[in-house]
Amino acid sequence: MTLCISLSARPSNNGTRFHNHLYEQLGLNWIYKAFAPTDLAQAIAGVRGLGIRGCAVSMPYKEDVMALVDELDPSAKAIDSVNTIVNTDGRLLAYNTDYTAIEQLLAGNAVPTDYSVLVQGAGGMAKATVAALRDAGFTDVTVIARNEDTGRALAEQYGFQWKATLDGGTADLIINVTPIGMAGGPEVDSLSFPEDAIAAAKVVFDVVALPAETPLIKAARAAGKQVITGAEVATIQALEQFVLYTGVRPTDEQVRAAEDFMRAR
Amino acid sequence: MTLCISLSARPSNNGTRFHNHLYEQLGLNWIYKAFAPTDLAQAIAGVRGLGIRGCAVSMPYKEDVMALVDELDPSAKAIDSVNTIVNTDGRLLAYNTDYTAIEQLLAGNAVPTDYSVLVQGAGGMAKATVAALRDAGFTDVTVIARNEDTGRALAEQYGFQWKATLDGGTADLIINVTPIGMAGGPEVDSLSFPEDAIAAAKVVFDVVALPAETPLIKAARAAGKQVITGAEVATIQALEQFVLYTGVRPTDEQVRAAEDFMRAR
Repeated sequence: MTLCISLSARPSNNGTRFHNHLYEQLGLNWIYKAFAPTDLAQAIAGVRGLGIRGCAVSMPYKEDVMALVDELDPSAKAIDSVNTIVNTDGRLLAYNTDYTAIEQLLAGNAVPTDYSVLVQGAGGMAKATVAALRDAGFTDVTVIARNEDTGRALAEQYGFQWKATLDGGTADLIINVTPIGMAGGPEVDSLSFPEDAIAAAKVVFDVVALPAETPLIKAARAAGKQVITGAEVATIQALEQFVLYTGVRPTDEQVRAAEDFMRAR
Repeated sequence: MTLCISLSARPSNNGTRFHNHLYEQLGLNWIYKAFAPTDLAQAIAGVRGLGIRGCAVSMPYKEDVMALVDELDPSAKAIDSVNTIVNTDGRLLAYNTDYTAIEQLLAGNAVPTDYSVLVQGAGGMAKATVAALRDAGFTDVTVIARNEDTGRALAEQYGFQWKATLDGGTADLIINVTPIGMAGGPEVDSLSFPEDAIAAAKVVFDVVALPAETPLIKAARAAGKQVITGAEVATIQALEQFVLYTGVRPTDEQVRAAEDFMRAR
């Protein structure tokens, strides 16, 4: 039996349910378990020493874990952040499948790279988003973040503009990477972009995964816009972890069943 | 969910089946998994770093692991060998439940300590047996082992006699700790003590666990002798691990059900 795990300060059951459901559907003798490590270095030593095949990494370990692996895949290097480790005979190769998921969604939705882009937010997922935009060839990108230190640093690292507030701005592609609209958050009912920015956009992308239909996504659908959802990001990033660990790519139907199982709680 | 594991070069499913079946019967949200570690020190680091509650240790790690734990229980100190580690908030306390099981069986069967004893064998389980005999207060004990180096050293460490061969000898309590009679071994059909030694004995103890009814145990039962079986040793050692890990002592019926499940393959 092969073990895969996740490491985070506050483990959720999402990965556990998604991966275990796919193992079961595909008849793989694998098991997935979430851990809250007491010591990150010892936990990673355990990944090697116990021959654990795959290890998802969440907050607050995504940066610290970089020093403990053998090699960084370009997806992790692009954003100085790791969310996936694959152990092949004791050699640990680290990826970031959040970056991969956003890269795939921009390409899969055929978003033209000459579109102007507004990215609202400056956290870890904003970094994955901005890096994926740059690597896809987008050039007209503005990061909107109230905090100048983090916002400007993020924008400048990838050669883009920074603005403190939206201030009536519009763009062809608007992306929310703030917690606005997130289930359980204080702004669950709020729209992360104003109606006129939605009206002016051609594509609306909300990285918030829960609920799948945030106020922004609902408004964009109502306005007939092309949308990309955070639920898609979450599914693709977990799916790519699954493929990296097992070498098996499940069918779309199997992925949907695992997604439904993950959310049916 | 709490994880317990085992570490051995060639993991068997026995512990996994026994412990997981008891977790299920008792409604504990625990899981047990067997590992073949690639590096013992890193595996033990992983026990700490991942907060793994319990860790069974088998060949060839029972001695080497002593240097990696924080404290040795008297059961492990008595035989310089560890088969069980309990992790309490990162502090690793190591036990040997083989020793504990033999100690319990000698006491539970009320074997008088003034009985003469013959112990045939000089491996790890022989050491657990000889140490338990000494600590229970037995004084007339002879270790029978063809290899003088290991046999004499074992006997002398615990203040007992050594003989190379049985040579017609008899005793009140005769104990087999060689692989003679073991399922899958080359001597599965052989009797580990001759008929006259069985006839002269009051209690016959076979530490071979599989099959439960070895040729020695069958012959002893046929001769109307009190018997102690290796299957009892195996069950008690696993049960004591379970109690150390979980703090819960299952009923006899629950233990029997887990045993049956373990063997039903």
